[in-house]
Amino acid sequence: MQPLTLVPLPDIPLIRQGDNLADIVVNALKANKLEIKDNDILVLTSKIVSKAEGRIVNLETISPSLRANELAEQTEKDPRLVELILRESRELLRFRPGAIIVRHNLGFVCANAGIDHSNVMGQEPDKDPGGGVKSQSSNLEQNNWVLLLPEDPDKSATEIRLEIEQKIDRKIGVMIIDSHGRPWRLGTVGTCVGLSGIPAIIDERGWKDLFGNTLQVTVVGVADELAAAGSLVMGQAAEATPVVLVRGFPYPLANATMKDLLRPPEQDLFQ
Amino acid sequence: MQPLTLVPLPDIPLIRQGDNLADIVVNALKANKLEIKDNDILVLTSKIVSKAEGRIVNLETISPSLRANELAEQTEKDPRLVELILRESRELLRFRPGAIIVRHNLGFVCANAGIDHSNVMGQEPDKDPGGGVKSQSSNLEQNNWVLLLPEDPDKSATEIRLEIEQKIDRKIGVMIIDSHGRPWRLGTVGTCVGLSGIPAIIDERGWKDLFGNTLQVTVVGVADELAAAGSLVMGQAAEATPVVLVRGFPYPLANATMKDLLRPPEQDLFQ
Repeated sequence: MQPLTLVPLPDIPLIRQGDNLADIVVNALKANKLEIKDNDILVLTSKIVSKAEGRIVNLETISPSLRANELAEQTEKDPRLVELILRESRELLRFRPGAIIVRHNLGFVCANAGIDHSNVMGQEPDKDPGGGVKSQSSNLEQNNWVLLLPEDPDKSATEIRLEIEQKIDRKIGVMIIDSHGRPWRLGTVGTCVGLSGIPAIIDERGWKDLFGNTLQVTVVGVADELAAAGSLVMGQAAEATPVVLVRGFPYPLANATMKDLLRPPEQDLFQ
Repeated sequence: MQPLTLVPLPDIPLIRQGDNLADIVVNALKANKLEIKDNDILVLTSKIVSKAEGRIVNLETISPSLRANELAEQTEKDPRLVELILRESRELLRFRPGAIIVRHNLGFVCANAGIDHSNVMGQEPDKDPGGGVKSQSSNLEQNNWVLLLPEDPDKSATEIRLEIEQKIDRKIGVMIIDSHGRPWRLGTVGTCVGLSGIPAIIDERGWKDLFGNTLQVTVVGVADELAAAGSLVMGQAAEATPVVLVRGFPYPLANATMKDLLRPPEQDLFQ
């Protein structure tokens, strides 16, 4: 009867390119007297990973292709943003005004290739080092910076995990999440885009139920369930709590890849 | 920095038609010296609600229609089960061997109309009252009992909530969850099929991000995020922990309906 506990880490500063997330997380844990134990999991929003890895792009530097211009007109989006969406994707699945659904280069289906316009700010050298808001950049029309997903979130998660494990001498899991929409339901939910040291799915086929019947179709997306839980604790509007410490994940740590969560295209009934 | 905590309730007995779930949950809380506080949420698997409401069906009583027989052949499923799936659905969306994707009468899209074959047992009067397993019924081939989703899960959640609130004099939320598959990702995730006293979505459009930019598209499916978290704690194979006590849900209790989570068909790009 172990409870699952998710603690949002306070005191994570605004992240900028080149920042060492392992250091920052360990420092935040210490500052809050939070001990990390074996089998704990750290859930990070993809935004801070992208920022640390410099995946920020100024739309002013992007020249949209003919195809991007066409699609931008059909979707009422900035052609430069559409150009980035297409570059980040291996397949365009659906579009309508306001939304472009793609299969991302990383393999999953999502809206707008996971490119994020919120909580992004340029890295001007004169920016207030305390992370303060410069009033002249504070509205969306003037903000041309967008954030791409990390290039290889599994690799990012592994690097962060190994570095933290070395610093604190504990075996942990690390997950990177993003907020994804769903085709038939409203509202985004936290979804795993990268992980390290955590099982992605638990395949219970062949297990027995309470009555000794053999379960037939139960493959559980435990990583996505944890991603949703982590997202709930982080909130969305302000990324003041971009890291969540999880204790009591009910499955043993294990090696997996985010790709274990992707349905093979030949099983896809909704391409 | 409030943590989110999910505690699986032990000592929930096997549920049978007519059982009072409010009584059972309150007793389990007492037996485990778990205090329930204002703003706590109880997450229940739909299975126990269906059982208490007698939504159990013996396939031997079902005569499949011509259409059910046809679809059963195409999907390699029991025609009587297919008949029930069709009766429980307002629209057939896709099928392949092993899977029938429908829009359920309740409005959401799911596989097999949420009809469950696991952890279901007949209600023979001579059944071991302790809930033990009679060996002659313990394998799937002999088990013709299936479980339909509750007829009106929002109503069920409301009834359970009001009854528990009256017993313990606290304001709480109640959610009923089921495990749903996803079109492009492997593994089921816990999904809200009914709720009472809990917000379904949080609409953050118009809120400001950290830099004062206005958020444009952030509607968060907080009820589904909580459902996923609850499901993670319950596990799947044995429903020994069909109820989870949640503390620290980061939004105020509110009135909502599961239908708030459903994307209107005119916005559906993947019908």
